Amino acid sequence: MQQGIGIIDSGVGGLTVVKEVIRQLPREKIIYFGDTARCPYGPRPPEEVRKFTFQMVEYLMNYQIKALVIACNTATAVAMQDVVREISIPVIGVIEPGSRTAIKETRTHRVGVIGTTGTIQSGAYENTLKRINPGIEVYSLACPRLVPLVESGDLTSQHTKKVVNESLAPLSDENIDTLILGCTHYPLIADAIQEAVGPGVSLISSADETARELSAVLSYRNMLAEQNGIESPEHRFFTSGSPQAFQKMAEQWLAIPVQVSQVDLETVSNRSTF
Amino acid sequence: MQQGIGIIDSGVGGLTVVKEVIRQLPREKIIYFGDTARCPYGPRPPEEVRKFTFQMVEYLMNYQIKALVIACNTATAVAMQDVVREISIPVIGVIEPGSRTAIKETRTHRVGVIGTTGTIQSGAYENTLKRINPGIEVYSLACPRLVPLVESGDLTSQHTKKVVNESLAPLSDENIDTLILGCTHYPLIADAIQEAVGPGVSLISSADETARELSAVLSYRNMLAEQNGIESPEHRFFTSGSPQAFQKMAEQWLAIPVQVSQVDLETVSNRSTF
Repeated sequence: MQQGIGIIDSGVGGLTVVKEVIRQLPREKIIYFGDTARCPYGPRPPEEVRKFTFQMVEYLMNYQIKALVIACNTATAVAMQDVVREISIPVIGVIEPGSRTAIKETRTHRVGVIGTTGTIQSGAYENTLKRINPGIEVYSLACPRLVPLVESGDLTSQHTKKVVNESLAPLSDENIDTLILGCTHYPLIADAIQEAVGPGVSLISSADETARELSAVLSYRNMLAEQNGIESPEHRFFTSGSPQAFQKMAEQWLAIPVQVSQVDLETVSNRSTF
Repeated sequence: MQQGIGIIDSGVGGLTVVKEVIRQLPREKIIYFGDTARCPYGPRPPEEVRKFTFQMVEYLMNYQIKALVIACNTATAVAMQDVVREISIPVIGVIEPGSRTAIKETRTHRVGVIGTTGTIQSGAYENTLKRINPGIEVYSLACPRLVPLVESGDLTSQHTKKVVNESLAPLSDENIDTLILGCTHYPLIADAIQEAVGPGVSLISSADETARELSAVLSYRNMLAEQNGIESPEHRFFTSGSPQAFQKMAEQWLAIPVQVSQVDLETVSNRSTF
């Protein structure tokens, strides 16, 4: 049996990571869990985010995954280190890959980070950036109005442009040359964000960079899917919420047919021996 | 004692990797070996390149390095897998990082690679690109006239522009959108290369990407230099050739004072128990 890549997220935002994994690593089979029923994680207490994250990990471990991607910034910030300690497969979060690429891209050492309130308050990006390179100046900004725009499917309207402009205005005097999209929803409104910050600022998508780093981790561990494996692997998607709504959004974003199953994590968790 | 990053190269080309490691990972101490006396490796038989590479590795292992970067495309293509088998520290080559980033960057799946004759003939980039993503079309081109330009220090003259244009002309009909600079010398003439291929082609520097991937490997293994370590680590440089010539070039490229020692690898190797 081919081993897949487990990808977990608080909802549908992690599908931007799925899209990039399919694009960059087309041989890899993906097993996705989106905890849509309990999304968003941003405003929840860390202990609860940790519990929910472990419930998804536990569920996917039944599917013989060979690596796990935590495609949610909040879950990465709160639970990644604990997950790494608990499971023996490689774990890739969304915060380090974007941070590393920002450090590579910036010439002025002035890097902006936008994310949910939870992600920004955790300080995870600032800590990661400065741990790798203490010379980086970090300008962090919570943008709580952006995820609802994306979730509503309004990606290009004048209203969206206005909200993006207003949200990003506090960054305009910071002279950043690089901006980390510290939320997996944001790549979907990247055009509006680029317009708001101007062409001189490089946008770093944590989805792109996480897929690239997954590629590196699999390669270093000799775990890339084999040439003789399934040519177009059949991905699997689970959601704790409405499978119809998830399927509609997933098929729209990924542009492939998607089969979705609903799973009640609370019930599954009580039966588990993990 | 602080453990350093070992970086080996056939000569001075690997200094582009050193520059990026200093920029992206300023806390890491570098111990560099450039085999200038026996440069270039490109035209040598693989067995000889392997032997020379192991002599450098062996020498640097005396300096308690915690990771090794093979900053020479030819040595990576020929000897990387053997080095990985022989030593227990992480080994990062220059071929995979650039390949992964090209896969991330390309939208048309048409990727060009330029390198020395040795690197192109090894097929290492094409194999690596297709192993990760079989959908990538690879257009490889040996550019034997470019390294001598860089080694001569002529980076910007009309003559250089002309040679670069002539060398890259065969790629002009291939409609690539991404070009891997598959030689650590090439970032030094990146402006001329960009002009030759036009603004629609993204250049991938293996130096930038290798430093970024070193960052990932150190991070996943919890091996990043500590915050309380030396603020500006003292790097060490060894060359098998003229230390004066090496020092001059290194100080010019890195823009820091550089101490260089000369080492005769043939003599050292005979005494070793490695």
